[in-house]
Amino acid sequence: MNPATIKACLFDVFGTVVDWRSSVSREAAAFFKGKGISGVDPMEFAMEWRKLYQPSMEEVRSGRRAWTILDLLHRESLSKLLGRYGLSGLNEDEIEHLNRAWHRLTPWPDVREGLERLKTKLIIAPCSNGNIALMVNLAKHSGLPWDCILGAETARAYKPMPEAYLASCRQLALKPGEVMMVAAHNGDLKAAKAQGLATAFVPRPTEYGPGQTSDLSADPSCVDLPVKSFVELADKLGC
Amino acid sequence: MNPATIKACLFDVFGTVVDWRSSVSREAAAFFKGKGISGVDPMEFAMEWRKLYQPSMEEVRSGRRAWTILDLLHRESLSKLLGRYGLSGLNEDEIEHLNRAWHRLTPWPDVREGLERLKTKLIIAPCSNGNIALMVNLAKHSGLPWDCILGAETARAYKPMPEAYLASCRQLALKPGEVMMVAAHNGDLKAAKAQGLATAFVPRPTEYGPGQTSDLSADPSCVDLPVKSFVELADKLGC
Repeated sequence: MNPATIKACLFDVFGTVVDWRSSVSREAAAFFKGKGISGVDPMEFAMEWRKLYQPSMEEVRSGRRAWTILDLLHRESLSKLLGRYGLSGLNEDEIEHLNRAWHRLTPWPDVREGLERLKTKLIIAPCSNGNIALMVNLAKHSGLPWDCILGAETARAYKPMPEAYLASCRQLALKPGEVMMVAAHNGDLKAAKAQGLATAFVPRPTEYGPGQTSDLSADPSCVDLPVKSFVELADKLGC
Repeated sequence: MNPATIKACLFDVFGTVVDWRSSVSREAAAFFKGKGISGVDPMEFAMEWRKLYQPSMEEVRSGRRAWTILDLLHRESLSKLLGRYGLSGLNEDEIEHLNRAWHRLTPWPDVREGLERLKTKLIIAPCSNGNIALMVNLAKHSGLPWDCILGAETARAYKPMPEAYLASCRQLALKPGEVMMVAAHNGDLKAAKAQGLATAFVPRPTEYGPGQTSDLSADPSCVDLPVKSFVELADKLGC
């Protein structure tokens, strides 16, 4: 991989750009406090919500379900979770506010500086499973200076399906080899690499908390460029 | 229309944000000079190219042709035009460079200041018939600070079809009444208004040159907010 050939960087978002676990638990804690709900651990709540993420998308990937955006999948998972925790009596606006916790996630400390620098020379865009409204609101909330929003909704395919990566390249009128996928997850990069994209791995060793055992380092079989942060990525790409 | 209800502004681009006529003619002039081609008036060439724009999209709108992005329609129109002017002997790279003149258009003088101010409070996005790559490259070239790229390619429908406007609202998770369409063309605003969007008209009386006779002023039957510039639009929307 020659850095001079890269014209765009696509970013995984949940985990790679933002710390969803502490952000959603912070939102859940504030919500429970405001509603006088006790006895639910907000961190556990965030983790349980996230556990329903892959199964909900798998219904769409498998073709058992028509294309459905992530905001709705999140909402359905939340309804299940509220039922499981016995949290009834919330009105629609309250549930929607809690569901929009995913629109108010906090980026890791290196993200904004790295993106601002990358943007000076390259196209930068999310290639996330989050839908357009989620990504736009998150960018407004957290100051993420994307050039455009790509990913699942514009591709109408959830990662790691090939079309999620290929549609994003096509929509930028770039060849896969001119595009670098950036993620904290080797699985995402393996799928991108299989479609011809260049890849960069940024470790987020506390995404799942202090006891995390997966994705602690780059898998050399699918990672072209292992870096420590978005700032080092900007250095390596000459931005 | 209450300005406080507006959460996003969508913008027509060709004519409203950028001066396509003088930009394309400038690009054509430089191209012809570089190739030693004389006897073609660059301004006429730009106008003739633009004349093929609506008929090319009409093939898609009518359903006679499958979804096709504007870069390709522009390219086909350019091939016709080169044939008509007897300009043979250009290679693929040269034709592609000329086709990408549409990625290098210059904004009207009030645009950047207005967009920067609007962006502080509202979501701003193009709702153009241009495809994503065209809009992204144009934004990079001209410093347009869009929050995301919406329009024909994400909607898979060309304006003024209802879906072009409705998909853009849906993708932002906003109601049509929370979204304002901004254009220099009453026809665009009439179509947006019919779908429930708020509308603002910004005159661009020299878009088609000094003799322009259409769209010199707002049509009150479909325009909620007539303004003189993007800066006045920011004033009126409290940005």
